[in-house]
Amino acid sequence: MTPMNNDLPVLDDLISVLDRTPTTLAALLDGLPEIWVTATEGDGTWSPFGVVGHLIHGERTDWIPRARHILAGDSRPFEAFDREAQFSESRNKRVGELLGTFARLRIENLETLRGFSLTSDDLERRGLHPELGEVTLGQLLATWVVHDLDHLGQVARTMAKVYTTTVGPWAAYLSILRDRQR
Amino acid sequence: MTPMNNDLPVLDDLISVLDRTPTTLAALLDGLPEIWVTATEGDGTWSPFGVVGHLIHGERTDWIPRARHILAGDSRPFEAFDREAQFSESRNKRVGELLGTFARLRIENLETLRGFSLTSDDLERRGLHPELGEVTLGQLLATWVVHDLDHLGQVARTMAKVYTTTVGPWAAYLSILRDRQR
Repeated sequence: MTPMNNDLPVLDDLISVLDRTPTTLAALLDGLPEIWVTATEGDGTWSPFGVVGHLIHGERTDWIPRARHILAGDSRPFEAFDREAQFSESRNKRVGELLGTFARLRIENLETLRGFSLTSDDLERRGLHPELGEVTLGQLLATWVVHDLDHLGQVARTMAKVYTTTVGPWAAYLSILRDRQR
Repeated sequence: MTPMNNDLPVLDDLISVLDRTPTTLAALLDGLPEIWVTATEGDGTWSPFGVVGHLIHGERTDWIPRARHILAGDSRPFEAFDREAQFSESRNKRVGELLGTFARLRIENLETLRGFSLTSDDLERRGLHPELGEVTLGQLLATWVVHDLDHLGQVARTMAKVYTTTVGPWAAYLSILRDRQR
């Protein structure tokens, strides 16, 4: 197999981040007043609560199922990932409960990932994304990490915006308040 | 005193976030491989390590000293805050050590803040910022919170960008990789 690129992630590096996301989000969100947990950046944007539900859905249907798909040599496209599924699944739950579910699923999925005993060659194995076309297992696993960090950044930004006007003149220095302005 | 605005922060709400920042950053960064801790977004930008040093400097010289300044009725401008001081102070330290120092200082500062037993009237008391002009104590405390979240978002973004090319075609979906592009 010809390498698509030499930019392969190191498994221990990526697992070290994936392993920390549930504890990081729990440290930030568990027990936090509702003003922060249910805040959004406006219509059609997600609250920290919604983000945790989305991460749970990813653990169940996206990362490991797609890794298995690639490792099985399945040439059909991956099933599409429903980015809005959390809104039905999380209804009537509390954020602490969602954080616990996310942590449990992530532990199981990292055990599965370690159990694959992946080689560098494995990381270059390819699958077919329904929109993006050909992708590698290494790219999928790197995306899992960046997806976590993207949503951690979103949670921080969404919480920050609760105080957009409360900070008064200091808004001029707080650039997060202007990120993804709508 | 005429209220500057009615947009006063609730002390319990803001303390609940301030209290969680050190544990959140420790959950994310303590023991993490160097590839993440020392990454930057390019020349002149800060690594997660640098951010923790900056937060320590703020605990020592910014938030509580400025709150005391306002509560003392001091009409002189605040002393300017050195945003780059961490680079000399953090030299030769490890991120775990910095996280411990940050946690200890934050606990002390929140004890001090609670000890002020602030009223709503206190939150409208005013001080003079050297660049921004008149600001209130409520705005200062809200800024403390947003400043934490701004830097948490920065840490997530900086770590994410380590894998900018590693994610391959998925970069199209990962908007954090395009935030604050230089």
